[in-house]
Amino acid sequence: MSGSSVLKELEGEVAAINRALVANLHTHVPFISQVGQHILLSGGKRIRPLLFVLAARLCGCPSNSLADFSTIFEYLHAATLLHDDVVDAAATRRGMSTANTIWGNQAVILVGDFLLAKALSLAVTTDQLKVLKILAHTTTMMAEGEILQLLHATNLALTEEQYFEVVSRKTAVLMSAACQIGAILGGVPEPQEEALARFGENLGITFQVIDDILDFTGDAEELGKPVANDLKEGRITLPVIHALAQASEADRRLLKDLAKDVQPEMVPEIQTILQRYDSLGYARSRARDFTRAAEDCLSIFPPSKEKDIFLAITAELLERTY
Amino acid sequence: MSGSSVLKELEGEVAAINRALVANLHTHVPFISQVGQHILLSGGKRIRPLLFVLAARLCGCPSNSLADFSTIFEYLHAATLLHDDVVDAAATRRGMSTANTIWGNQAVILVGDFLLAKALSLAVTTDQLKVLKILAHTTTMMAEGEILQLLHATNLALTEEQYFEVVSRKTAVLMSAACQIGAILGGVPEPQEEALARFGENLGITFQVIDDILDFTGDAEELGKPVANDLKEGRITLPVIHALAQASEADRRLLKDLAKDVQPEMVPEIQTILQRYDSLGYARSRARDFTRAAEDCLSIFPPSKEKDIFLAITAELLERTY
Repeated sequence: MSGSSVLKELEGEVAAINRALVANLHTHVPFISQVGQHILLSGGKRIRPLLFVLAARLCGCPSNSLADFSTIFEYLHAATLLHDDVVDAAATRRGMSTANTIWGNQAVILVGDFLLAKALSLAVTTDQLKVLKILAHTTTMMAEGEILQLLHATNLALTEEQYFEVVSRKTAVLMSAACQIGAILGGVPEPQEEALARFGENLGITFQVIDDILDFTGDAEELGKPVANDLKEGRITLPVIHALAQASEADRRLLKDLAKDVQPEMVPEIQTILQRYDSLGYARSRARDFTRAAEDCLSIFPPSKEKDIFLAITAELLERTY
Repeated sequence: MSGSSVLKELEGEVAAINRALVANLHTHVPFISQVGQHILLSGGKRIRPLLFVLAARLCGCPSNSLADFSTIFEYLHAATLLHDDVVDAAATRRGMSTANTIWGNQAVILVGDFLLAKALSLAVTTDQLKVLKILAHTTTMMAEGEILQLLHATNLALTEEQYFEVVSRKTAVLMSAACQIGAILGGVPEPQEEALARFGENLGITFQVIDDILDFTGDAEELGKPVANDLKEGRITLPVIHALAQASEADRRLLKDLAKDVQPEMVPEIQTILQRYDSLGYARSRARDFTRAAEDCLSIFPPSKEKDIFLAITAELLERTY
């Protein structure tokens, strides 16, 4: 199944998720819906709600409320994005003005808190304590991941291990939770549930590593942010860690120097160094390892349409260009 | 039972709560404990955890893990304080430098998120879905309350109804949840549980109205913040709403003018207007109404040591000077 046919296949699900995202945002305070819709409807792949819906279906869950429950994962993600944008003082996201630019940091911090509370409110309607336990663990890990990332900012001595620790916590844990909670609602035995949790985790790591590669290779317009934006904002990612470890003394010194204050005109020079040591190729090969691990996790499941879609999504996340 | 003897009576409980607050803050990232301890150990009356512990005991809950569970309510409160201080760009709290002044807004937003997640993690260990339902509702209401307060900032046309709506959401809902969840862990029938929820709500409103009075009458050093700080930061509270409604046209115009940019030398003039219309007396009489309502809620319970302590706390919150 090719990438474009996967998306075609999921158009109906994405539309249902988008409707639920707006419907569940109903609040006593209309301003909250306004700010919430700005972040929720400004694009995004809905990858987390889709993982949940597909995992639930793969595990035989009847699909009545799946779109509703799936919003838990997008609200949690959006809450993180809102707080991230304040933390990074970001002016644009996906090519649009950030909420903090329009409404100020104050409102955005509080709407982030509201979305987190809303996700929790939806989660309790599953009536399953285990779902809440996983979400409690997930939100704790995510907060730790964000703080670790902040503490590691501009640390050019960051190790691969430290990098993957942040990636696991900040990105992979939520995708893992989306898959695992889908499995729980499907009522499958523990081995299947754990397999889907590990599938989501490996997929999440792939997703983040590719994101970090695209930061150097992607099209600024398509990405909605400038090239080398991570490095500019002090986030040291896998390609840079690899280049610093492999480069000659002169190149290492040059890259460290460039990283101190990334200006647009320096980007080609940074890209040249990353190419010289095949650091993007290395990062891609690590992403491929995680993709393979994700695929392996699905071997416990018999053939099905949902399994095919999961495999197609896995391939597509590795090959995506934005 | 006099005020001071209530505090004497509860010294052991407060010490146990303080120990649990530090112990449960254990995380993978030591920096989080450092920031968390700054806000958690910088004073505070532990009123929310105490309400929980007392409600649970009043309802016959064996007290093994009560101090542990009680930290849920202080962590939630501290998360709000951290985000509040960023929202208000506050430099001091309780006379000490705020965490955002020391570690920056970024870290503080994320540690607030962590404390919220930690509260949720502790709540799931109660193994009671109903507890999670109440906390989901509580955190949603609190976020709405904070946003309403932000939207109402500097609105001199604020009504009493709008004021009490914010107070209910931002302060009373968490005290109500602390009492109700204590009742749930005690396993009492619904009428007792609801009575304690209403007791906590009425007590919470009393607490906030007194806080808003002390903003004009308290001792700056004892409060750890300047007099008329709420008005200076744009929070329109009950005494001001009353004065604006009762004052002569000239005084109303003067008060509105003073409220636009509160400077320390204007404080006596503001206090004079509030005294002229007995606006602080009015606010105190409203607080007393809520105190009486709180006391009435306890009538369903037979006499007990915990009930006596609750009644003494209620009286003390009305009479407190800081």
